Amino acid sequence: MLENKSRTPISELGEFGLIRHLTENITLKHNSSIKGVGDDAAVISYSDNKVTVVSTDMLTEGVHFDLSYVPLKHLGYKVATSNFSDICAMNAVPKQLLISLAVSSRFPVDAVEELYSGILIACERYNVDLVGGDTTSSLSGLTISATIIGEGEKDKLTYRNTAKEKDLICVTGDLGGAFMGLTLLQREKEVFKEVPGAQPDLEGNDYILERQLKPEARIDIVQAFQELNLQPTSMIDISDGLASEIMHICTQSGLGAQIYEEKIPIDPMTFNRAREFNLDPTTCALNGGEDYELLFTINADDFEKIKGNPDFTVIGYLSDKNSGVNLISKSNTSHPIKAQGWDSFVQK
Amino acid sequence: MLENKSRTPISELGEFGLIRHLTENITLKHNSSIKGVGDDAAVISYSDNKVTVVSTDMLTEGVHFDLSYVPLKHLGYKVATSNFSDICAMNAVPKQLLISLAVSSRFPVDAVEELYSGILIACERYNVDLVGGDTTSSLSGLTISATIIGEGEKDKLTYRNTAKEKDLICVTGDLGGAFMGLTLLQREKEVFKEVPGAQPDLEGNDYILERQLKPEARIDIVQAFQELNLQPTSMIDISDGLASEIMHICTQSGLGAQIYEEKIPIDPMTFNRAREFNLDPTTCALNGGEDYELLFTINADDFEKIKGNPDFTVIGYLSDKNSGVNLISKSNTSHPIKAQGWDSFVQK
Repeated sequence: MLENKSRTPISELGEFGLIRHLTENITLKHNSSIKGVGDDAAVISYSDNKVTVVSTDMLTEGVHFDLSYVPLKHLGYKVATSNFSDICAMNAVPKQLLISLAVSSRFPVDAVEELYSGILIACERYNVDLVGGDTTSSLSGLTISATIIGEGEKDKLTYRNTAKEKDLICVTGDLGGAFMGLTLLQREKEVFKEVPGAQPDLEGNDYILERQLKPEARIDIVQAFQELNLQPTSMIDISDGLASEIMHICTQSGLGAQIYEEKIPIDPMTFNRAREFNLDPTTCALNGGEDYELLFTINADDFEKIKGNPDFTVIGYLSDKNSGVNLISKSNTSHPIKAQGWDSFVQK
Repeated sequence: MLENKSRTPISELGEFGLIRHLTENITLKHNSSIKGVGDDAAVISYSDNKVTVVSTDMLTEGVHFDLSYVPLKHLGYKVATSNFSDICAMNAVPKQLLISLAVSSRFPVDAVEELYSGILIACERYNVDLVGGDTTSSLSGLTISATIIGEGEKDKLTYRNTAKEKDLICVTGDLGGAFMGLTLLQREKEVFKEVPGAQPDLEGNDYILERQLKPEARIDIVQAFQELNLQPTSMIDISDGLASEIMHICTQSGLGAQIYEEKIPIDPMTFNRAREFNLDPTTCALNGGEDYELLFTINADDFEKIKGNPDFTVIGYLSDKNSGVNLISKSNTSHPIKAQGWDSFVQK
């Protein structure tokens, strides 16, 4: 898609022209968005009992995404929702997004438009204002940086270092699907390399492909907590893999954790594809990233509030630091969990 | 500096290790910084009459900076101050910074430390909290994205689209110095390429080199406006060159502008070096970027407040849109100004 030389090169529009072109149809949805794109800075205002929550994230071509099988529109959507997810993990609501792009000047304008269209669709769906950013050139490839600003109530924010011993460990949705989607896409890319022109065999895998290419942020869970009057004792989003995220909560809260393998929620499609690839489904769920589900802990007294709710699964409990972070297998043996989550510096 | 293979490679620390290593000594200075690095998002809170001002910026190696003559510590300092400058241009005060880096995994940890040390020195000097960011790998080179959050008073913010006809156009400091510093560094790089081992001839050029390598943000001017009880009618920082910034204010305010060449403040060193390089000093001031001075407009009735103040120079006035944006030369002829400011997509 990026090789079509007939399209408008970015250099023809220039930096300001490109920004104007990409942002001219944006209308601001929030009263808190006082000023958006077009000045030195965006202006945001919250009332007294609200706090501003802000997170930033950077993605580089060849490391975080591969344009040979990731459509740019999906990539834009994912950049946005993965950032919204960070705000949800604070038990807050995403409100304003800023996007910076560094693109090779050989990228056609259409490509950047595609990327932006995905970002804007996500903003629309999640009721977020795009209020600023930067667009500049790079010597090669595409780098995307996003900054998301959210609104929260000071007393309801959920941190990583506030979990307590005996709290229950819960996750939303199911895990490992995004990783299996990626594994599938990578296999088809290899096939294509060996047999150029081969059509990808992706049929019947919609769920795991969508988990990888078009993940959603669990803003519905933030709303559910409100409705259930449930205050998690800690929370984190699952971007690098369950094992890595559990380690973050345990390290920062000074605790251990016991996770029951049989409780980890895995979709049947994820399970079956893992088996076909000779992978252990539990390992995929523990170490595969990008599910963007929420991992949170609750006081055991609150269990009644989530009991039977299909959105939530209790997978274990927090224990004394000295007991370590362990996976209790289906055969009832205990194995230390190591954070083998995704690390851009050591992978490959 | 980046070639020394004996140093710790980043992959040894990993992403989380690196972030921890870089941020472990940070202490937060502001009551508004509720939570800094270490969770899904930073948490920031302002009181009711204050607004949050936010800006983001991206810099790529080979486009925005050349590590062959820019020390990483200076680069870090400049990344920070150039972002602070965007908040100053809103007549607001920078408070919290987030930094995202994408670096090739071949960069030694020391290099990233150097960069961070410059960022932290700037944060210390400007009383800004580093509250978050992301550190990830890239296939090649270094990309830096910064997001700066500031605090302003709703009624005192200065936008680009609020200038009025007959307002006076003012600048702070002097212009063109950063460009001449860059020109000098580029010349010495060429000499070095032809005669490896040649010592750079930079002596006696401290001022313009510092303008290029270690620019400051004019936070002092934001304070001065407060003390002078002066409310600019519009403001922008001069990052891409005076011509480009004037065009932004004129376009967004729907006005023209008449600038007097003889009024444009140029330091004698900038002037002399420009002559030596056979460059027109006025062109350097108009089209050279990165001075990070402020361009602002005031109601003519406020002239008394800045008269004789060495920080400010009145360089012209705003006129009807149809009169155009013109430079009135020393010989009293009028030339249309074109925004030939720095554009990363068309330069080279």
